[in-house]
Amino acid sequence: MGKNIIVGQSGGPTAVINSSLAGVFKTARDMGASKIYGMRNGIEGFLKERIIDISDFVKNDVDIELLKRTPSAYLGSCRFKLPHVDKDEAVYEKMFKIMEKFQIDCFFYIGGNDSMDTIAQLALYADKVGSDIRFIGVPKTIDNDLVVTDHTPGFGSAAKYVATSIKELIRDTKVNDMDVVTVVEIMGRDAGWLTGAAALSAGPDCAGPDLIYLPELDFDIEKFIAKLSAIQKERRAVTVAVSEGIKMADGRYVCEYTDSSDRATDAFGHKQLTGTASALAQVIKGRLSCKVRAIEFSSLQRCAAHIQSQTDVEEAFNVGAAGVRAAFAGETGKMITIERACDEPYRSAMGIADVQLIANEKKDVPREWINEDGDYVTKEFLDYVAPLILGEVSPIMIDGLPRHIDYIK
Amino acid sequence: MGKNIIVGQSGGPTAVINSSLAGVFKTARDMGASKIYGMRNGIEGFLKERIIDISDFVKNDVDIELLKRTPSAYLGSCRFKLPHVDKDEAVYEKMFKIMEKFQIDCFFYIGGNDSMDTIAQLALYADKVGSDIRFIGVPKTIDNDLVVTDHTPGFGSAAKYVATSIKELIRDTKVNDMDVVTVVEIMGRDAGWLTGAAALSAGPDCAGPDLIYLPELDFDIEKFIAKLSAIQKERRAVTVAVSEGIKMADGRYVCEYTDSSDRATDAFGHKQLTGTASALAQVIKGRLSCKVRAIEFSSLQRCAAHIQSQTDVEEAFNVGAAGVRAAFAGETGKMITIERACDEPYRSAMGIADVQLIANEKKDVPREWINEDGDYVTKEFLDYVAPLILGEVSPIMIDGLPRHIDYIK
Repeated sequence: MGKNIIVGQSGGPTAVINSSLAGVFKTARDMGASKIYGMRNGIEGFLKERIIDISDFVKNDVDIELLKRTPSAYLGSCRFKLPHVDKDEAVYEKMFKIMEKFQIDCFFYIGGNDSMDTIAQLALYADKVGSDIRFIGVPKTIDNDLVVTDHTPGFGSAAKYVATSIKELIRDTKVNDMDVVTVVEIMGRDAGWLTGAAALSAGPDCAGPDLIYLPELDFDIEKFIAKLSAIQKERRAVTVAVSEGIKMADGRYVCEYTDSSDRATDAFGHKQLTGTASALAQVIKGRLSCKVRAIEFSSLQRCAAHIQSQTDVEEAFNVGAAGVRAAFAGETGKMITIERACDEPYRSAMGIADVQLIANEKKDVPREWINEDGDYVTKEFLDYVAPLILGEVSPIMIDGLPRHIDYIK
Repeated sequence: MGKNIIVGQSGGPTAVINSSLAGVFKTARDMGASKIYGMRNGIEGFLKERIIDISDFVKNDVDIELLKRTPSAYLGSCRFKLPHVDKDEAVYEKMFKIMEKFQIDCFFYIGGNDSMDTIAQLALYADKVGSDIRFIGVPKTIDNDLVVTDHTPGFGSAAKYVATSIKELIRDTKVNDMDVVTVVEIMGRDAGWLTGAAALSAGPDCAGPDLIYLPELDFDIEKFIAKLSAIQKERRAVTVAVSEGIKMADGRYVCEYTDSSDRATDAFGHKQLTGTASALAQVIKGRLSCKVRAIEFSSLQRCAAHIQSQTDVEEAFNVGAAGVRAAFAGETGKMITIERACDEPYRSAMGIADVQLIANEKKDVPREWINEDGDYVTKEFLDYVAPLILGEVSPIMIDGLPRHIDYIK
């Protein structure tokens, strides 16, 4: 009798989070799993027993290929934080009862560091109550801020989107013979990996952005205006890439610079950050006499599956697959990691680590990978990121548009 | 002795405006032109004699392929309005002197309706002074608002970007089990063609946007809120596509709804329109209790060459090529048009029309191609747009990014 498994997706979606789901599904199927369940909207749906049999929806290999190319979380996502297992056992009792009902042997959760905390808590509880259900975390985040793993699936495709779009935008900014500053806002609350990837646009056919600001360092408005003004003496169109999460020395986010009221927070207590580019644009307009454009890549950067990185799609699939193999081999309370096996040519291997080491931790861009002035990334940064955007997965184009897998009805 | 030609680009760039330039360049070269000049930044650069020999930069067939795939105007653009020829002759005298100096036989201008006015004025002046220099307009605009021609190059690729991105965004909006309204702002000051193209995203794998508002009709905020609220009873994630240029019955733009000060205007006296989605988001937040996201496709929609429509790239090339053939055959004061030769399979042919018929005119989406409620497009609209996004031009990917032609140094 094969094992029953269940898989969920959590946190912000990416362009390849479904490739990890495909990796879990296909590998479990190929390894003889009995039932492959999916929880709708992560833990939140699981607690309401919103559980589907994935085989009812992903029926063949073409569906698997469509799934790999479909952005956003196919099963739906949530931002639901489990209480610490020592604080409130009721929700864990409920969860394990549901698992018992569905005779679950292995539980997979695809997500970022908040989701890894969920896996950590569930594994702790399982240990406490002597359950042999296995809990495995599958990494995912465009932010690339998980520790231990070399990088995270989702980041490479987002980086490819960012570098491609900024390369195209830079062409656009230079079209008129006039002074214009373009401020591009890129996702990244605390970590600047994705914003730094804007520098990949530089090459023989593009100078890349002129300035790049990451949230790892305090943002100094005066220094920024001085720098901008110096660059404007050399060229008319200036492009600045900023993380949404850049903060001033006084601890306020730059996007709050012009705020009159408090910002909303999400379920994890994270402030809604948006408008960083607009706020900076206002400042620039007030200080320098030039045209300013604020551009937000918004959700596009996490859902642009039409320009996935092949490296990323494959690694996302592989972390899912490795998760299943690990669970079937008896592992629990672990997260699959990506190890950089070789730089040139780039190759990666799947590893595994204690999820406790990863949950709630966060990996910053190291100070030495940011230039001294704090307004660009270094060659080391670029050498690290460059392989992750390599290769393209041909979208399945029908009537001129990428085809996705049908929604779960 | 072959002819000398000069070509310029004007107005807002598109993802395929350089394909038209490639069409002019290659055809002129193949037809034995002596010199193929390019004016930097359109008429503005021409008047300063900022003129290059394009062969110095586009050296071979690979360069031509790169040029076709490079977004934004390779020669640079401008927004420079020539005075009416009856009002101020000085600028025309100057222009014709420069043409004489460079021994120009044919003058091509790639642009929208303002640029067609430039061609019209120049042809009028040539006639007046008995010059036999030929002036031909090559159509270009993502707005698709030129009359006489079936459609304009640049529109198809922008429509493909809009439909693809909105399809991906709609997936993203449905990821969490919560009420959310996403308002997507699409370019289109006066004409809603591009915004209407958002409806192309609908198919077996996507429901498409829920509501679409074009600038052709007055926007009624009360009716909108009522409609939105009714849709929210049926589904949690609602997506609304709006043209940047939608106006209320009192004549104010929706983006001015929350404005406290006057907006800047460009050289043509057009108001800078942006913030329509943000303004609507504010209204929705105030009226309905749900999360609201405002997304602007911004310049991305006109420069996303990585997802060009093959149909569009080819037609853009063909209007350039036809322009050269027409000028060499003695035509002047004309614009090349695209005629729809066949619907299924879609085929187009190049035509030609008096540029006076086109300059300063504008083609709206017909009322009967918008539904009765004024919040969606009809099947006729979709049948018209659908063929224009067909096919893909493989980007030339190097190190994971689309390669463009080198900038003119």
